[in-house]
Amino acid sequence: MKTLASYLDGRWQQGTGAPAALVNPATEEPVAQASSAGIDLGQAVRFARDAGAALRAMTFAERGAILAAMAKAIHGARDELLGLATLNGGNTRGDAKFDIDGAAGTLAHYAELGAQLGGARLLADGEAIQVGRTARMGGQHVWAPRPGVAVHVNAFNFPAWGLAEKAACALLAGMPVISKPATATALVTHRLMELFEPIVPRGVLSLLCGSAGDLIDHLRGPDVLAFTGSSDTARTLRGHARVIAESVRVNIEADSLNAAVLAPDVLPGSETWNLFVADVVRDMTQKTGQKCTAIRRVLVPDARFDEVADALRERLTAIVVGDPAREDVRMGPVATAQQLRDVKAGIARLAAATTSITGGTGDIEAVGVPAGKGYFVAPVLRATREPLACDAMNDHEVFGPVATVGVYDGDAAQAATIVARGGGGLVASIYGDDRDWVGAAVAIAAGWNGRLYLGSSKMAAQSPGPGTALPSLNHGGPGRAGDGGELGGARGLHLYMQRCALEGDTSVLKSLIA
Amino acid sequence: MKTLASYLDGRWQQGTGAPAALVNPATEEPVAQASSAGIDLGQAVRFARDAGAALRAMTFAERGAILAAMAKAIHGARDELLGLATLNGGNTRGDAKFDIDGAAGTLAHYAELGAQLGGARLLADGEAIQVGRTARMGGQHVWAPRPGVAVHVNAFNFPAWGLAEKAACALLAGMPVISKPATATALVTHRLMELFEPIVPRGVLSLLCGSAGDLIDHLRGPDVLAFTGSSDTARTLRGHARVIAESVRVNIEADSLNAAVLAPDVLPGSETWNLFVADVVRDMTQKTGQKCTAIRRVLVPDARFDEVADALRERLTAIVVGDPAREDVRMGPVATAQQLRDVKAGIARLAAATTSITGGTGDIEAVGVPAGKGYFVAPVLRATREPLACDAMNDHEVFGPVATVGVYDGDAAQAATIVARGGGGLVASIYGDDRDWVGAAVAIAAGWNGRLYLGSSKMAAQSPGPGTALPSLNHGGPGRAGDGGELGGARGLHLYMQRCALEGDTSVLKSLIA
Repeated sequence: MKTLASYLDGRWQQGTGAPAALVNPATEEPVAQASSAGIDLGQAVRFARDAGAALRAMTFAERGAILAAMAKAIHGARDELLGLATLNGGNTRGDAKFDIDGAAGTLAHYAELGAQLGGARLLADGEAIQVGRTARMGGQHVWAPRPGVAVHVNAFNFPAWGLAEKAACALLAGMPVISKPATATALVTHRLMELFEPIVPRGVLSLLCGSAGDLIDHLRGPDVLAFTGSSDTARTLRGHARVIAESVRVNIEADSLNAAVLAPDVLPGSETWNLFVADVVRDMTQKTGQKCTAIRRVLVPDARFDEVADALRERLTAIVVGDPAREDVRMGPVATAQQLRDVKAGIARLAAATTSITGGTGDIEAVGVPAGKGYFVAPVLRATREPLACDAMNDHEVFGPVATVGVYDGDAAQAATIVARGGGGLVASIYGDDRDWVGAAVAIAAGWNGRLYLGSSKMAAQSPGPGTALPSLNHGGPGRAGDGGELGGARGLHLYMQRCALEGDTSVLKSLIA
Repeated sequence: MKTLASYLDGRWQQGTGAPAALVNPATEEPVAQASSAGIDLGQAVRFARDAGAALRAMTFAERGAILAAMAKAIHGARDELLGLATLNGGNTRGDAKFDIDGAAGTLAHYAELGAQLGGARLLADGEAIQVGRTARMGGQHVWAPRPGVAVHVNAFNFPAWGLAEKAACALLAGMPVISKPATATALVTHRLMELFEPIVPRGVLSLLCGSAGDLIDHLRGPDVLAFTGSSDTARTLRGHARVIAESVRVNIEADSLNAAVLAPDVLPGSETWNLFVADVVRDMTQKTGQKCTAIRRVLVPDARFDEVADALRERLTAIVVGDPAREDVRMGPVATAQQLRDVKAGIARLAAATTSITGGTGDIEAVGVPAGKGYFVAPVLRATREPLACDAMNDHEVFGPVATVGVYDGDAAQAATIVARGGGGLVASIYGDDRDWVGAAVAIAAGWNGRLYLGSSKMAAQSPGPGTALPSLNHGGPGRAGDGGELGGARGLHLYMQRCALEGDTSVLKSLIA
């Protein structure tokens, strides 16, 4: 059995003690194991932090070149990585591409940004302003790298993209990274670190395979802790004594009941209608619904409910579920036995408060796997006539191929109020071609979401769908979603930098950001 | 005795139970009292939050007009407010102007920004970008008002400016405010609320005089909690169960061991030298050293130590301490008996680790007050030859007219390393005319500070000094300073807004931010 070592303190290290098993979620067979027990994480943090001085001394262009090399390394091992994602993640080839190509694409995006930022080390934040009686006395805001280490605790669903999207921003900003993937799906991440190790300066990127142990206990004020995962773990991290005592900067990307709203002007069979139906089905089934950005709540005008239910039922029942390595399979298993239990419990909670459109409670016989094996669940679409009152729909993220349709009266404000009932989300999508209606919904929904995807006939042909977190657009949301923000081009660097107002003689300020 | 009511739930309310006394810190005579016991703070929060819809429906220009009216109201009652600041805050007239005029000026600054932003309700965040194959599929980041209430917990040292600088940003962003001043010096704040009440829409601005009670227990995800004060209270607020559970956004402005660095090129008697000496003396004595931005640590090249000590001693011993209402008095008392105890304890801790340049341990006979009365302390300047090793100098903010001079070897990196030893600060100042030297210090210090004031001969004639937090420049710092950020022009609005990426047809995006 392969044992995944950690790359910490500038060397590969095996933990002691009983390792955790990584399995193939389609067959439940073990594929690797990992343990971090006994590794000196305090030393790992200090080593990474000390590597920061050399990274901060590099220009943005030099840091960008590291990211470009990382992207190239992924591309060179693409087929191998796709295979590992299927083996350990239950990904279909399409799902695996979404993760692996997304990782390479995000690194390439930030590599390009680094090249654009060029020879600077401070990132200008706006223009110089006059703060004295004459133009001679000025102010210039800059972003400077934080003199600490960035600790990244990632979720199981994106073992490649999760590392890459956080590391791209932190490294380009000038902070060394310790990345901790979810152990259950760390096979891909471990292979990435093997690929990156020869091309990244020593200490600048570390990988912790296995439990996080006492990692957080070693953080200090200038460090950054970025987490993607459940609200429960987010609360534990945010309230961690060390984090509170040292004002460690924390970014959270947590639960999100992402809504898709169909506006009343959208007619069945129209381009916008088709986009809406395709997006809901893709988001429910891509990566078996295990995307933090996936649509969980579908809001449709009362008058359109039957047609929406029919269209979605027809598409969802055609989805072949089974061994993700097979070409005819469209949806694989969820990633772990615990995820399956959680998804089934979530469906049961929904079932008590809603009616079934398709999939019932998710039981299914999967194609191409040993009978009774694998963490499979069918696409499940539920319905409620009272979405505002339905706690199960609005308060509990079911992290699988599960969504609920709720009806509203066609009013933009009512639709947006139901969107807001989710308590803050990563993304909401609004499908409509009536600009005034869309504008009224946006006015209410924008304060509750980190991204609003506006589906319309004009962009239907080239839309990436709401479920795709693009490197150029903000990823993160308020409230329940954790009140964080990542990506968004240069905005993604700010988490890892200190905003500093330089105040003084204007010509001095100019020379400092040249 | 005057009892300060709170303005909550749209009406003036008196608390029950034993009130806390507000005193004249120069005489220890009571001047007012306040209690919030028995007031329904849950209802106060809901009422304020509900007022948000009307505020969010206003344009930036309309919200700015409210701020302009508030600034005008302060101006109209200026002399009365200056008198109250002297009576309850121990402020000299100059100190009182710094607070009161600062409040009006900050409101006026944001009123003007509102006028500039005009008829919009969403704040554009950068330019539109292409995210699809063609320019038709685009992205546009915006800032949208958070649909909650902003709770402001302010410090005792700026009863007017503290309310104004936070409220200006929140109200212009579109969030209603509940402001809670420190009870000890709330006389000025209470009068401000009386002035504002007739000119601010109902529910948009509330004032809590007395204890915060269970105020924080009523906050939710979209709300914002902004605090200025001690690190201890900051930790309590940041770790509050409700704040953690709901991802309430928190901004902290806490302890800061602000450093002033004299570069080795600065010759005694030069313009830059004179600016440095004047800034250190002003920061130590203005508001009796009770400014979060005040210089606490003075770093000078070894070769200049004697001349610096002589210059500062000469100025500081000339400061007349006593009744702040007297024209010949340059420095009044600290604000409360507790502050005096804390300052004296801080001086004692410093005295155990440093030598005295002037002021010894701060004992003084104050001018014009009853013998033995008032919370007076002399300007105290201490010295150490080993600033990096001096915990008392670097770890404990003494919130009074107290600073410590440390020597360094003239190297920019060493000076910046001692600056960083403070663990993160609001502002550091660097005095020098050698741009390379200043640039080398900035490269290290920028990541540790929210503002770097670069004193030089070119700007000496029009410098506001490092201790003045300008509305156009960032105010806040990493680590020990709380890792927050306020002001900085439009940047100050972001705390109260949600960044949202709008994604869709470019012409739709354009119409939304028009």
